[in-house]
Amino acid sequence: MKAAVYHGQRDIRIESVPDPTPGPNDLVLKVGVCGICGTDLEEYTIGPLFIPDKGKPHPLTGKTLPVVMGHEFSGEVVEVGSGVTRFKPGDRVGPDILLTCGECYWCKRHQLALCPNQGALGLAGDGGLAEYCVVPEFMCIPLPNGMSWAAAAVAEPTSVAVRAVRRGQVTVGEKVAIFGGGAIGQLAAQASRVAGASEVYVVEPQANRRALAEQFGATATFDPKTGDPVEWLFEQTGIGPDVTIEAAGAPVAAPAAIDAVRPGGRAVIVGIPTGSVEFNFLQVVKGEKNVHGVISHVYDEDYKNAIWLLGEGRIQAEPLITRRIALDDVVTGGFDWLLNHQSDTLKIIVEPGA
Amino acid sequence: MKAAVYHGQRDIRIESVPDPTPGPNDLVLKVGVCGICGTDLEEYTIGPLFIPDKGKPHPLTGKTLPVVMGHEFSGEVVEVGSGVTRFKPGDRVGPDILLTCGECYWCKRHQLALCPNQGALGLAGDGGLAEYCVVPEFMCIPLPNGMSWAAAAVAEPTSVAVRAVRRGQVTVGEKVAIFGGGAIGQLAAQASRVAGASEVYVVEPQANRRALAEQFGATATFDPKTGDPVEWLFEQTGIGPDVTIEAAGAPVAAPAAIDAVRPGGRAVIVGIPTGSVEFNFLQVVKGEKNVHGVISHVYDEDYKNAIWLLGEGRIQAEPLITRRIALDDVVTGGFDWLLNHQSDTLKIIVEPGA
Repeated sequence: MKAAVYHGQRDIRIESVPDPTPGPNDLVLKVGVCGICGTDLEEYTIGPLFIPDKGKPHPLTGKTLPVVMGHEFSGEVVEVGSGVTRFKPGDRVGPDILLTCGECYWCKRHQLALCPNQGALGLAGDGGLAEYCVVPEFMCIPLPNGMSWAAAAVAEPTSVAVRAVRRGQVTVGEKVAIFGGGAIGQLAAQASRVAGASEVYVVEPQANRRALAEQFGATATFDPKTGDPVEWLFEQTGIGPDVTIEAAGAPVAAPAAIDAVRPGGRAVIVGIPTGSVEFNFLQVVKGEKNVHGVISHVYDEDYKNAIWLLGEGRIQAEPLITRRIALDDVVTGGFDWLLNHQSDTLKIIVEPGA
Repeated sequence: MKAAVYHGQRDIRIESVPDPTPGPNDLVLKVGVCGICGTDLEEYTIGPLFIPDKGKPHPLTGKTLPVVMGHEFSGEVVEVGSGVTRFKPGDRVGPDILLTCGECYWCKRHQLALCPNQGALGLAGDGGLAEYCVVPEFMCIPLPNGMSWAAAAVAEPTSVAVRAVRRGQVTVGEKVAIFGGGAIGQLAAQASRVAGASEVYVVEPQANRRALAEQFGATATFDPKTGDPVEWLFEQTGIGPDVTIEAAGAPVAAPAAIDAVRPGGRAVIVGIPTGSVEFNFLQVVKGEKNVHGVISHVYDEDYKNAIWLLGEGRIQAEPLITRRIALDDVVTGGFDWLLNHQSDTLKIIVEPGA
């Protein structure tokens, strides 16, 4: 089959690899759609980061690069392992892509996001930027009737956003501010509304992303190039937002999210920081603030809720998608395009069957 | 009356000031004992910090320096304002020293520790390093029979430790690690036991403080000069402590407390950081950790519990006290002594009536 294979920094190749075969508890999916994620882009430009480098096999998969990329995907079952009971060929499914060891202290307690051995399909092992992909049955959710492949492929980032909102304990009538209007930020803004937030603010430097947030119903948006977002959020809310969600990944955004949240409020850090920052923990001490990290998502806590919300139309995925490309075009029309078109591209999806 | 008055950095004078007079809802206390706190020492060496400088009157008290220092004290009622109903001359009381505005969003919700206008007696206004001190009635707690002045004076730092343990939600059977074996750290170790902690670890470079922690029942102690406390705590607990409490105030201690806490655990920052530190928020993201700040304490949430626990002997205060001095000796035998005897001094208390 054809696949987008990561060989190293700035070295992704579209090449022919053997068709995957399922283990007894696996499904083989014919990939409907696979998105390209900001994490994928970081692997391309400054990686390998989460992809295991040569000589450092991942503890769960035993794999090192080259690996087939892609961890935001959905597809149709074409083959099932001998032990599979819940799915049959022809079923349309969305897979959570978090691999966990099943044996550590945390896995035994079903706190899968805390598994120290965790990895993801498309990073620690072969993923969905390919014609076919093998996924474990247990992490797959049936797609609701009528859900598009594209919407299902956005379930993965949606599940991250859902987890961020759950970790922040957003509840009825609260004011939420999102730092970063990328896919996670846009989805977290929508998930906050689902959780009952009465006001949702989005801080984002790109005009197109601010416009999209407003289209999704943000109360107001702010361009941090024009002033201090902490002051602006204080003016908007009177006391600061109850919850802030840092979804930008810029090292300076986490301190801003902590500064902005109201005294006693909750700052959720879900962006993967790209480096260190000068920080005075007095910012946490004063106002007795709370900071909560989010690294992942769990199939039956976050991913199934993402599929539910997308299926009900309570979170909209389609407007996030600014570009659809074929598998052959992944490097030039996908990764390189993203690098050169940040101001007008949000989510690129790849259609391996197109 | 005689008082220790802060005029500026390295300028504390024992001088004669007018006897204080109570407002209608105030008590005048004859000070039994007043402790010298790490915060006081910072005011002496690098302040004014919390003490309002000239030209910058505190919003609650309207005061600037010079102010009478001392915020860890207890005393006997000698005079009451016309509106006082709960106390009479001769009563022995411990006062919480947190001043709040009573009018802000947070005060109206009784979230007094979040009041942005907060201050403390002994910093924002005149305190207890004096023969007499005026305190509002509402924040005073009657001392249990038999409680020494010294134990009552330690109620203030005890209430900070109690709040740290409550903010960290320490509960039955949990493993707790304390960074810093100063007064707050020693009291937080004891308060963790009260909350049901099964194992309590103390990280502290000074041998005398480690010995004291062991006397108070610490499971084990560690000298961070001899190795990495994060690794040591992981070895002791297998997965990291459920809760870490940063009570050192050194900028590097907060990142260590976050690194050390188990995945999904709670790191409480109660030390007042003396500056910034290089920090990568990936430390919070990975392991989905939680960080909680503590700035203060509230009379009916923390302070009354501190008096209760000291009165019941469930927290021991007397072993913390390494030196007792007269008011006249506050500079040489108090502040300067602390600077030169960190290795063998923990808490110095001043006895104005001695």
